[in-house]
Amino acid sequence: MPTAIPKLGRPKHVKDTDLRCLAAAEELFAVRGFEGTSLREVSAAVGITSAALIHHFGSKERLYGLVLERLAKSLDSYIMEISEPASIETVVRMFERFLDWSFDQQHLAQLLLRELMENRTRVSRARRMHLLSLIASYVEQIRSGQKSGAFRQFDAELFVYYTLGAITHFSAAAPTIDRMLRVDMGDAISRFRLTLRDNVAAMLTTNQNIRSSSRSKTPARRPRG
Amino acid sequence: MPTAIPKLGRPKHVKDTDLRCLAAAEELFAVRGFEGTSLREVSAAVGITSAALIHHFGSKERLYGLVLERLAKSLDSYIMEISEPASIETVVRMFERFLDWSFDQQHLAQLLLRELMENRTRVSRARRMHLLSLIASYVEQIRSGQKSGAFRQFDAELFVYYTLGAITHFSAAAPTIDRMLRVDMGDAISRFRLTLRDNVAAMLTTNQNIRSSSRSKTPARRPRG
Repeated sequence: MPTAIPKLGRPKHVKDTDLRCLAAAEELFAVRGFEGTSLREVSAAVGITSAALIHHFGSKERLYGLVLERLAKSLDSYIMEISEPASIETVVRMFERFLDWSFDQQHLAQLLLRELMENRTRVSRARRMHLLSLIASYVEQIRSGQKSGAFRQFDAELFVYYTLGAITHFSAAAPTIDRMLRVDMGDAISRFRLTLRDNVAAMLTTNQNIRSSSRSKTPARRPRG
Repeated sequence: MPTAIPKLGRPKHVKDTDLRCLAAAEELFAVRGFEGTSLREVSAAVGITSAALIHHFGSKERLYGLVLERLAKSLDSYIMEISEPASIETVVRMFERFLDWSFDQQHLAQLLLRELMENRTRVSRARRMHLLSLIASYVEQIRSGQKSGAFRQFDAELFVYYTLGAITHFSAAAPTIDRMLRVDMGDAISRFRLTLRDNVAAMLTTNQNIRSSSRSKTPARRPRG
């Protein structure tokens, strides 16, 4: 008689189902948004009953929360630990990692954009803090270069939003932009990558002329209408 | 007996209803997307029957097409006619006009982002050509400055996508970014405006150092994956 193997944790097939549910939910939330996605559609995509899905995950809100956790973990794995002193090349590479993530994990990038665009009340405090700490690491790196005099002075916080926004937008709009540029997508991505490198380098480079010419013509903080 | 006044064109109340339908549709399409919006919701928002809405506009596709036409017209009214020779200040102002539009017409800006993000097959050829001609006017202006030697050399086409993308993203994500920055939105917008001016000026400025340092470290067109 074979010895019974003790089960440690949840059996494998349950874990597989969990992962398949999360992957299906991620895709549906990314394409149709939180409101446009039903638990019925998620369970249909995986081939289980709605009752089984609810048994596994509870509510749609909870399932969505778990998808956002996966997003945060995925993003973490692309973020570099910076120990070296701030240099143009380091900052450029930090932004490039975000570009890599947004194309490697295109559904997650689209979900992040929806989250920023659509979510007024849904986002959990924890989730918001996570994104803030990511942004803070970019800002901190730029400010350290500004303090040491390696980079010129500008609004580091807004520049980080600006650049991450440009990347997120490009990734989300890529299939449409692709058709517009009428080049193959690999080429569009590498042209975007070069533009990103070029633009970040231009922004960081100490150059008194750039600074004084753009500042002198800029009225200080004129709030619109 | 009063003389009957001949009706010229459609009576005013019909035009009003048309405009109210278009405004309601614009808002719903922006917030919920094309798929997430039903004709029933549009008619309910205006306070007419679905039958009346269909009588006015035909299908959801046709209503959506008219909303996109309004978007194109609205955008046109913000685009400057450029006759002067290309200068940093002119290019900066062109991008600022797009920023103005995206905050004055926030629903339309959000709709444009959805269109770029979600639309794989729906977009009409006409609509696409319109956006292309807008982008072409930005690209042309930058290239003319590059030809005259006023601006340094870079990929003008991709830089236009990059910058319009950063602006579109900021506008769409503004309510969330606002909470994250913990400043009032007027302040966030003026900080973004300064960052835009600063960034475009930095990119355009002729500076051999920027150019050679960013080029030398950039491998030429390495397509990903």
